Amino acid sequence: MLIGSIEAGGTKFVCAVGDEKGLVLDKTSFSTEEPDKTLAKVESFFKEHPIEALGVGTFGPVDLDKTSNSYGTILKTPKIKWQNYPFLQKLKNTFHVPVAMDTDVNTACLGEYYYGAAKEANSSLYITVGTGIGAGLVQNGQVFQGKNHSEMGHIFVQKHPDDDFKGSCPSHGACIEGLASGPAIEKRYGKKGYLLAENPGVWEMEAFYLAQAIMNYFVMLSPEKIILGGGVMKQEKLYQMVQDEFMNLLNGYLAVDNVKNLIVKPELKDEQGVIGAIMLGVKALKREI
Amino acid sequence: MLIGSIEAGGTKFVCAVGDEKGLVLDKTSFSTEEPDKTLAKVESFFKEHPIEALGVGTFGPVDLDKTSNSYGTILKTPKIKWQNYPFLQKLKNTFHVPVAMDTDVNTACLGEYYYGAAKEANSSLYITVGTGIGAGLVQNGQVFQGKNHSEMGHIFVQKHPDDDFKGSCPSHGACIEGLASGPAIEKRYGKKGYLLAENPGVWEMEAFYLAQAIMNYFVMLSPEKIILGGGVMKQEKLYQMVQDEFMNLLNGYLAVDNVKNLIVKPELKDEQGVIGAIMLGVKALKREI
Repeated sequence: MLIGSIEAGGTKFVCAVGDEKGLVLDKTSFSTEEPDKTLAKVESFFKEHPIEALGVGTFGPVDLDKTSNSYGTILKTPKIKWQNYPFLQKLKNTFHVPVAMDTDVNTACLGEYYYGAAKEANSSLYITVGTGIGAGLVQNGQVFQGKNHSEMGHIFVQKHPDDDFKGSCPSHGACIEGLASGPAIEKRYGKKGYLLAENPGVWEMEAFYLAQAIMNYFVMLSPEKIILGGGVMKQEKLYQMVQDEFMNLLNGYLAVDNVKNLIVKPELKDEQGVIGAIMLGVKALKREI
Repeated sequence: MLIGSIEAGGTKFVCAVGDEKGLVLDKTSFSTEEPDKTLAKVESFFKEHPIEALGVGTFGPVDLDKTSNSYGTILKTPKIKWQNYPFLQKLKNTFHVPVAMDTDVNTACLGEYYYGAAKEANSSLYITVGTGIGAGLVQNGQVFQGKNHSEMGHIFVQKHPDDDFKGSCPSHGACIEGLASGPAIEKRYGKKGYLLAENPGVWEMEAFYLAQAIMNYFVMLSPEKIILGGGVMKQEKLYQMVQDEFMNLLNGYLAVDNVKNLIVKPELKDEQGVIGAIMLGVKALKREI
């Protein structure tokens, strides 16, 4: 069984083929250009591989409401040429195999759920803290979705008492993405996060915000695992700071046996999206999606 | 088909019988006392009604993890005699019919989903703003649950710039329950909410908080309907204030056709819990739970 996988990012596309065990057999990547040019490169990669199904984790927002006429279409995005692009339909027309699509972060969650840090769990939340903040939930092998996909980076949390930064989110200002994403850190301090590695106040504030986001996700969704990934989390000291702050906030209200087993690092390095998209393809083939 | 229904509140128990269409045929209520005394009254009510199944919406927190040894047991609660009480098991032993249990707010959500304000929707969030704040989500007839049930009243949100109240939640201080529940209003202003009906600042602040909570729920869960009930919402002017503030916060990031059809009043008066518990009983009988 050869399954195709696309990780469609705003700046980079990764195309891969793999098997139903999530093993990646071949892979390529290229810059994201306008849709038709990009799709031509996708087509050329898969021409060499006889895939039986295709899974796609895409940037968004994207319409994932199956009852909608524009199911699989990219919605409002700063990448104007992609706006209203019927991405899923184009892929179906090109490859004539079952295609399943979800958001990038939901797809990454699926990868970690099956073959990464959550492989022993029945439910898992994957949070990425990078250029943006997003989170996806998988329970019993199913990606959680309401009418459309979640936008978990746009929740509001308490401001830190020492933080007078108004936030960097163009839509919401001081939502969690506007306060704690990579660009938020850079805008608040005038420097990229990794250049602030030795400034403890930066990371105390970051942990304060991430712990609140995790608190909100945890009390609402009750996942067994919370996987915290993305570029900002390369500051490894953040893990313990976030774990400690989360336990302070939770304050014994709900039982957590060991926070070090609850809030964890990803295990699939940068491949959770690619592997998750393979699993989406497997589900498309089995008609589970 | 005669189905039993229990709405088990911290101060009051409601017992009812009804049919699979959610029609309530008989009903009684009494004060919540210590568990065995209360259960004796429950038993005496149902002795007169040959029920085939029983649904229960209970106060909590309660262990609803089906893989747990203490499934159906009341967890840490200020009502000490109920703590660790194996509520579900006691009911099963007493009535020898299928019994399904969920939280009070999830059960109320189920009632509104099938026969109330969400009967035309595929997914619905029911929020109660009263002695506490809680919310439950139903999608395609299924109550959302992670490892255990949600505790949506304990999320954090931004403080209002004019609010120096530290919050009334014994565990979290200024979580949404600590800032916007009935007791929070009373503690902040030294008066019960209904005595402050003519004080516009009170309700502007309340709408500020509730709209943020709804924003967090909406971006995370993407429900088709958001039903806002509970004692505090008897201040009817709050609906429009919350709708307006929510649209300000969302700021066009996600499409909402008409906020008046999204954020709505309950339709089942004070019976959503009773009717929801009947529907839980129906599901227990059909072995769907």
